[in-house]
Amino acid sequence: MKEYKGYIFDMDGVIYTGKKLIPGAIEALEFLKNREKKIVFVSNNSTRSREDYAERIADMGLPIKLEEIIPATYATAQYLAENHSEKRIFVIGSLGLIKELLKVDLRIEETAEKADILVTGSDLNISYQKLSYGTSLLLRDALWVTTNTDKLYPSESGMIPGTGAVVGALQYVTGRTPDVIIGKPSKPIMEQALKALGLDKNDCLMVGDIIESDVLAGRNIGMDTALVLTGVTSLKDVEKTNTKPDYILESIKDLVS
Amino acid sequence: MKEYKGYIFDMDGVIYTGKKLIPGAIEALEFLKNREKKIVFVSNNSTRSREDYAERIADMGLPIKLEEIIPATYATAQYLAENHSEKRIFVIGSLGLIKELLKVDLRIEETAEKADILVTGSDLNISYQKLSYGTSLLLRDALWVTTNTDKLYPSESGMIPGTGAVVGALQYVTGRTPDVIIGKPSKPIMEQALKALGLDKNDCLMVGDIIESDVLAGRNIGMDTALVLTGVTSLKDVEKTNTKPDYILESIKDLVS
Repeated sequence: MKEYKGYIFDMDGVIYTGKKLIPGAIEALEFLKNREKKIVFVSNNSTRSREDYAERIADMGLPIKLEEIIPATYATAQYLAENHSEKRIFVIGSLGLIKELLKVDLRIEETAEKADILVTGSDLNISYQKLSYGTSLLLRDALWVTTNTDKLYPSESGMIPGTGAVVGALQYVTGRTPDVIIGKPSKPIMEQALKALGLDKNDCLMVGDIIESDVLAGRNIGMDTALVLTGVTSLKDVEKTNTKPDYILESIKDLVS
Repeated sequence: MKEYKGYIFDMDGVIYTGKKLIPGAIEALEFLKNREKKIVFVSNNSTRSREDYAERIADMGLPIKLEEIIPATYATAQYLAENHSEKRIFVIGSLGLIKELLKVDLRIEETAEKADILVTGSDLNISYQKLSYGTSLLLRDALWVTTNTDKLYPSESGMIPGTGAVVGALQYVTGRTPDVIIGKPSKPIMEQALKALGLDKNDCLMVGDIIESDVLAGRNIGMDTALVLTGVTSLKDVEKTNTKPDYILESIKDLVS
């Protein structure tokens, strides 16, 4: 396996599963750091701010710095601050997303009336009123930026709706699709990760457990990719897909060699 | 124009627009009644019970009986009572729908846990919890009955999301589509209308203002159809579509002859 200057890791299914660390994860990360490799972690999570996320990870005993964590909330805020800092934003999303947008001084509107941009994320307090505001914005051609388009994610009570519930509702009634998707497998979150690393894509490896999300995200931006089998994807799944990773690893600990 | 024994009317855009009666509507309905024609009114409305609807119409001064009104709420309740009376139902929908389901003694569940059927309508109190229950039901292959799949409807504050917001959200995250659609252009609401008339489809005319909803509903069930131009469809629109009505009328008053 080639040595890279930087490593971008998906988290759930790579570093931990649920709230349990993957055996060997800490050692693998330490091994890379000792060899002066740069590391960032990306996540499509649209409900937690970077700090919320860091706290959760610290609770698991993982030695990760705030600057190494790039959830979709943070990546969305960075993207908007870089490209649309002057615009007014209406958000259908959770508090973690709002926190990140406020942190970079973006202007969030209470209603759709004066907004230019609709930002969507998973919203635990979704309401008919919010969907109506979103609909009116999309019908008058506002820019639609979504944290991700994830359909479902696992919870203690089974699979629950992701940001896709908001995206699907608005897409169905307005006939529009998001103009910008920040999260994997889309490029913007990967661009934020490379920026955080300060490295070129050719010098980095994307490591993840989901082909359609992580491996595809690496591919889409032109990076080498490694699939770990500690998450949702099995070797059989790999055979069925055309999106082949450059490496297949039993687990993150195979990075130690 | 052929004489029919029964007439099925869409309401908004045919009898009234907003809260204003179409000129000549009362006279046309009286003319038909004087000639012993049978009449029912159908609506895809999924938030009002039959009684809510009758009250609204009475306020406009229209002489319509309760038994002549078939909103999608009522048609959905009838359909379920006839086909699934023993099943437990979880509802994502408004109070008007719940009222109709209770009126025919259907069993409505508070959560998804024990439910066999998901019923969806436009829900002014949509929540993440309700969408989660709906998602879990669909993922375990529950029957999905929806009042309609309407995308948008007009309101005083512009176009607002219809039942399509709920349908779109669940469809996107689960990959499923509704098993049964009650409202136009689907058949079940038309079957309820014919049942209320006590007539065969060949003896009835469907009168509406929307080609993709009203005319198509008539077509789908094999009835003759008349398009009125007092609603959303113009003569130009008719030229562009392949779903041609049997008759095109300036207004409902052209039924008087």
